[in-house]
Amino acid sequence: MDDPAIIERHGPVLKIINNNPSARNALTVGYVAALMEGLDRARDDTSISAVVLAGASGFFCAGGDLNVLIERREMEVEARIASINVLHDAIKAIRACPKPVIAAVEGGAAGAGASIALACDLVVAARDAYFAVSYLRVGLTPDGGATAFLSEFAPRQLVNEILMFGDKVPAERLFQLGVVNRLTDAGSAEQEAQALGERLYQCAPKAVAVAKSLAQDARQNDLATQLDLEAQQMARAQGGDEAAEGISAFLEKRSADFTRFRK
Amino acid sequence: MDDPAIIERHGPVLKIINNNPSARNALTVGYVAALMEGLDRARDDTSISAVVLAGASGFFCAGGDLNVLIERREMEVEARIASINVLHDAIKAIRACPKPVIAAVEGGAAGAGASIALACDLVVAARDAYFAVSYLRVGLTPDGGATAFLSEFAPRQLVNEILMFGDKVPAERLFQLGVVNRLTDAGSAEQEAQALGERLYQCAPKAVAVAKSLAQDARQNDLATQLDLEAQQMARAQGGDEAAEGISAFLEKRSADFTRFRK
Amino acid sequence: MDDPAIIERHGPVLKIINNNPSARNALTVGYVAALMEGLDRARDDTSISAVVLAGASGFFCAGGDLNVLIERREMEVEARIASINVLHDAIKAIRACPKPVIAAVEGGAAGAGASIALACDLVVAARDAYFAVSYLRVGLTPDGGATAFLSEFAPRQLVNEILMFGDKVPAERLFQLGVVNRLTDAGSAEQEAQALGERLYQCAPKAVAVAKSLAQDARQNDLATQLDLEAQQMARAQGGDEAAEGISAFLEKRSADFTRFRK
Repeated sequence: MDDPAIIERHGPVLKIINNNPSARNALTVGYVAALMEGLDRARDDTSISAVVLAGASGFFCAGGDLNVLIERREMEVEARIASINVLHDAIKAIRACPKPVIAAVEGGAAGAGASIALACDLVVAARDAYFAVSYLRVGLTPDGGATAFLSEFAPRQLVNEILMFGDKVPAERLFQLGVVNRLTDAGSAEQEAQALGERLYQCAPKAVAVAKSLAQDARQNDLATQLDLEAQQMARAQGGDEAAEGISAFLEKRSADFTRFRK
Repeated sequence: MDDPAIIERHGPVLKIINNNPSARNALTVGYVAALMEGLDRARDDTSISAVVLAGASGFFCAGGDLNVLIERREMEVEARIASINVLHDAIKAIRACPKPVIAAVEGGAAGAGASIALACDLVVAARDAYFAVSYLRVGLTPDGGATAFLSEFAPRQLVNEILMFGDKVPAERLFQLGVVNRLTDAGSAEQEAQALGERLYQCAPKAVAVAKSLAQDARQNDLATQLDLEAQQMARAQGGDEAAEGISAFLEKRSADFTRFRK
Repeated sequence: MDDPAIIERHGPVLKIINNNPSARNALTVGYVAALMEGLDRARDDTSISAVVLAGASGFFCAGGDLNVLIERREMEVEARIASINVLHDAIKAIRACPKPVIAAVEGGAAGAGASIALACDLVVAARDAYFAVSYLRVGLTPDGGATAFLSEFAPRQLVNEILMFGDKVPAERLFQLGVVNRLTDAGSAEQEAQALGERLYQCAPKAVAVAKSLAQDARQNDLATQLDLEAQQMARAQGGDEAAEGISAFLEKRSADFTRFRK
């Protein structure tokens, strides 16, 4: 039996591939464990600039495996919640990782697969890919943060439509809304995600981690609280090595070299 | 004198019609009472899949009746607040109803009429319809949740523009933003809302109620709280009858029949 | 040496011009002080209907001056926070001013310049203008509320892209999203902002202040709280002079004259 996930290093990018193609990369315990392991490695390894999430054989992830889910009927409610929380811990780990996590969506991202893609910091999708949150079609309700992530960008009426009818949302629509950062030709999403990861290698690593964190915090803080967070981070950044290099380079009219802070 | 509202049953859909056409369906005490009564019926009647709100004679609702409002000058502030809270209770009832509430907007939805339309879970609008929040033109300020509902989808700068100048917002613009779910030819909004209601009859009723509730909660919860809500609901759904039918149907490659849960 | 800011009165509009064109109107202590002073004047002077923020010589504001920022390395962290809070107090003053503040963006708004523009209630921009939040390019992190204001309208993924890569966002994109209220020919942004300010002079002044405040509050309140705020304001408005004039005018089929409340 093949490994449920493949973790590869491509230059500064750590790529985690869901490798369950015979089931359209439906979630497996092994994949979620590998996701946690990869995010853990990325956190501590300064030479990694970004994590790319992808799926084998041209499909991102079909979500939960219904053959597995139907067996959960026999479980106690607490055991079911514990199983769901394994996924939810992975979602929290994506959000907590100081490195940007980039989804490379080919084919489709459905159910919890859509939740994982939308949990990411940046999303690249093939022009013909789709997103679907179709739990209700099988009598289930959303998990993986789907309702939280959809509500970050869609009006409540559109969220209801996506949840209730479970229709496929074309990547093109999410690109227009700004959720999908890059739309590529079919088959090129991973390559574009790799390019973004390499571009991030040129960026100031601490500042990138702060940006990710502030972009997350802004969704729940009131303005005064967010201004205070920005002030604290900016005051720290002004005294840091990254700003010393960045501002000097600007004043000297040369390109900043932030890669030294990767060592 | 005609009834201020007409409640009709069309198959699985309960339709509540604002029937004050000589005043462009301006709000009446009778209409708001009928709205509460209809939502109450829909909550408890499992054969009802959706509530459709509409207006008689091709206009959704012009909002508060200025002939009535000018008389409130003589009231105490507390009495005025009590009058406004009658409307606000109806808005809360739309949000609390476990069945989706669908606005069918022909002509226009102005003032508190726009608030009622935007409070709904799904919005259908005729291509030539408009939305206007024009309280300020008569020296009043918004009510009915207008400022809350506009802020769910519009940048603060656009909300200010809509509130301060009171200009008509074409349904087309709200369709592009995803607030209006379906744009129809003039005269066909109610028919399309009916079709959505019938489509919802085919959906799993408990899961639909959970989706509505999560889509609402997501607007105020932080991610961790929302993930916990999703986990609780999903754990319950996994053990429920709707998932038993839905997942079995999927694995057996047949259409799920959720209508049995309507009995 | 020229004044760092020019405050001009044009009819009902108070215009505050950042006047540091040799540095693309980079922020100066003098400009931020003038901004506070202008907002203070606007608050108390009932003849002022709006404040317009602009930049000299066809550029809105380049943000912090890197020649100044690099000297902050020698400061204590507390002193750096204090310096940032001078800017943040100005941002809070824009939000707290009862009069609408209108950004007239020519050329570009970068760094804290973008924060100031996006803090405004209405934004007018020249078609060829851009917004950029490019702190990370020099190893710094955002301030001035940039992360809060971007998150008011952009999905988290787009906010990350704007922050991490610092690419210019064309005014056209922000116009489509509804953040930029009016897009003008190059060189005409101030004229259009003036026109909006004059239009606001015709509006009910207390109601405009309430609308601004409710549009801000709606971003953090839950629905029940926001409905209560709306009810309180509406009950007050119903007994006020502005509604007496506005409703009477409507019923008498004449134009309301709210300018008397400016005296």
